[in-house]
Amino acid sequence: MTAEIICVGTEILLGNIVNTNAAYLSERLAALGISVFFETTVGDNPQRVEAVIKQGLERSDILILSGGLGPTKDDLTKEIAAKACGQKLVEDEEALRRLETYFASIKRPMTENNLKQAMVPENCTVLYNENGTAPGMVIHAEEGKKVILLPGPPSELLPMFQNQVEPILQKLEPGILYSKVVKIDCLGESYVETEILDLIEKQSNPTVAPYAKLGEVHLRVTAKADTEEEAKELVKPMVSELKKRFGHKIYTIEEDTTLEEVLVKMLEQRKYTITAAESCTGGMFMGRLVNVPGASDVLNESFITYSNEAKMKYLGVKEETLKAVGAVSEETARQMAEGAAKAAKANVGVGITGLAGPGGETPEKKPGLVYIGVCVNGKTQVNKYQLRGNRQKVREVAVSRAMTMVRLALEEFAK
Amino acid sequence: MTAEIICVGTEILLGNIVNTNAAYLSERLAALGISVFFETTVGDNPQRVEAVIKQGLERSDILILSGGLGPTKDDLTKEIAAKACGQKLVEDEEALRRLETYFASIKRPMTENNLKQAMVPENCTVLYNENGTAPGMVIHAEEGKKVILLPGPPSELLPMFQNQVEPILQKLEPGILYSKVVKIDCLGESYVETEILDLIEKQSNPTVAPYAKLGEVHLRVTAKADTEEEAKELVKPMVSELKKRFGHKIYTIEEDTTLEEVLVKMLEQRKYTITAAESCTGGMFMGRLVNVPGASDVLNESFITYSNEAKMKYLGVKEETLKAVGAVSEETARQMAEGAAKAAKANVGVGITGLAGPGGETPEKKPGLVYIGVCVNGKTQVNKYQLRGNRQKVREVAVSRAMTMVRLALEEFAK
Repeated sequence: MTAEIICVGTEILLGNIVNTNAAYLSERLAALGISVFFETTVGDNPQRVEAVIKQGLERSDILILSGGLGPTKDDLTKEIAAKACGQKLVEDEEALRRLETYFASIKRPMTENNLKQAMVPENCTVLYNENGTAPGMVIHAEEGKKVILLPGPPSELLPMFQNQVEPILQKLEPGILYSKVVKIDCLGESYVETEILDLIEKQSNPTVAPYAKLGEVHLRVTAKADTEEEAKELVKPMVSELKKRFGHKIYTIEEDTTLEEVLVKMLEQRKYTITAAESCTGGMFMGRLVNVPGASDVLNESFITYSNEAKMKYLGVKEETLKAVGAVSEETARQMAEGAAKAAKANVGVGITGLAGPGGETPEKKPGLVYIGVCVNGKTQVNKYQLRGNRQKVREVAVSRAMTMVRLALEEFAK
Repeated sequence: MTAEIICVGTEILLGNIVNTNAAYLSERLAALGISVFFETTVGDNPQRVEAVIKQGLERSDILILSGGLGPTKDDLTKEIAAKACGQKLVEDEEALRRLETYFASIKRPMTENNLKQAMVPENCTVLYNENGTAPGMVIHAEEGKKVILLPGPPSELLPMFQNQVEPILQKLEPGILYSKVVKIDCLGESYVETEILDLIEKQSNPTVAPYAKLGEVHLRVTAKADTEEEAKELVKPMVSELKKRFGHKIYTIEEDTTLEEVLVKMLEQRKYTITAAESCTGGMFMGRLVNVPGASDVLNESFITYSNEAKMKYLGVKEETLKAVGAVSEETARQMAEGAAKAAKANVGVGITGLAGPGGETPEKKPGLVYIGVCVNGKTQVNKYQLRGNRQKVREVAVSRAMTMVRLALEEFAK
């Protein structure tokens, strides 16, 4: 069964709002095992909305429309959808009663505009709205097709979809979709894909799809079956195979788990604390780690040491080192990591020093050059990276690389 | 001239990512005076991508596609777009040279997959990518139509569109569009909109459009005329009117200027240095300030003091204060700001302490409660905020509020 999502609203086409409804509906439909082939956004223009609905009825089984159900003159989704399905609008008693109750409760008269919200296509299931005045509806169109109309505000759309639409869709689409996301934080996308080309080529159920994220590659493994247990069983061997191929380069196989969460958990398990001495990243490493609720268990203090003086004062970086090899060097990164750990009495110290650019380059040191030191219980490793992109990208990727280094160091030195 | 936006990527249809590219492109096209009638998202499926491109070529003048330019087998946008435009792919020397340089610099072999990124349609303008490996391109199709291909990652798409595509689009659309963006960092969107309702209602040329951004409201004033001078003259009186209404609540009227840039510039002009003592934001305040090239002129060191001990040790926050009113309190924020300024010998000290949630609440202190202290040359002000949203949102908005407080304090105490 295939669905398509149609969002109606000129404000989306003007870029005034980000279309989070589409992302929500997509994710829920995928979880229900319904394939979404197209998402279309169209403005509040009757001809164009009608063309999009008619095209959808030709190529998909289910159309899900959001927006354009309000009381104003611009709100025409229902009228156009009914017309496209060849249905007349009739008054729905329960919808009318709810509107009357609502306007009585807020002590405002109901206008002619509001009354039109009680009109529904003749062959539909009405979805009463617990969080607004516009009812939604599932129009039963020809050939068993469904046209589902939902209000635009996410606070109305989300509960209506979850509580009223999902049970209807579940009955239409037998089977369960289940997926795991294998997340790799230390290899490039094309390298990863080359390593699993054979799996991608012979995939059917489960499927494997690679996605690049900032400094990471995610492999989504998805299976479809009659029950969740069967789908899980189908996913298992593929995940095992990926684990065999990528080993400790995988940091999680859970969709919702982030690299910083994995770090905080590893630190908690070892009852370790972490600190950092950040130069070019200026606090972003720790700022990202503190995204994790409970970071307070593993963090007491951390340092942003931008000037050479601060590196000497707080971390004990040696003046000779700074003079001889400069602030952006392997030795400085090492002393920063070790000095931070010592000053904060932390098990793990991270030192990040680099040239984020633009400017500041020398013949030997180009923008994007970053040294990262990681010290775990006195054992220190320093890596050199030449990162690409603008100042912000270099800094963000440096933070990801530092997190990966900590993860691998904890696995290696401190099991 | 009409455009449509086509986003290619199964990950969008699966709801794995929110389509922020579409919102960005919509906003920029609106600013350029180009009408967007449709936005479509389609998965990595050759037949469906081709159908969408062909439909687009029939109904719009400009197609803007994002995604599907990577090195993997799923990435087929370029191949399909070239086919739909009846063009062959040829190797682009400069693109190949850039790929070779990149892989040499990261000391990794270039795979066959990567090589395909140097192939481009025969009649196109290549858009070289400063932030990734995939070049973009403007395909010159029949009847003067343009098919513009952009890489999917926002860090690559945004600068490529702004620096390379906008100048091309500006030449296609006769007349010059000129805009200023009045950025307000200390009022809510609905308040701002109410204050300018009369201007919005009678607008024609220039237009005024409000957009809410994280902790900010932007008012884009756009005029269209035959020459840039004429357009500038049309924009001027509206910007003056907005300045009269919002005064120092405006921090810039320049599109590309960010709040952190304004801060760094104000500090530079006064030859001031800044430091911060961050608790719940964990380094994000300074991490954002360091986005500005040249931040080194105004920053030597900064503190992430998560534990009470660290607040006492580095900032001199009094134990009695922490015992009596707690770490999340007006008095602690004050002592953090003043203590950081003293320890770092900085003119400006910022103290941020709050409950980002989830959890940790008491009957008096709910998640979202943040105290921010700002000390400029010994004069300190502390504000209390009750922010809304999840942990990350609370922390991001707290950073914005702290920046605004520093800006206003510098304007007031230190002209």
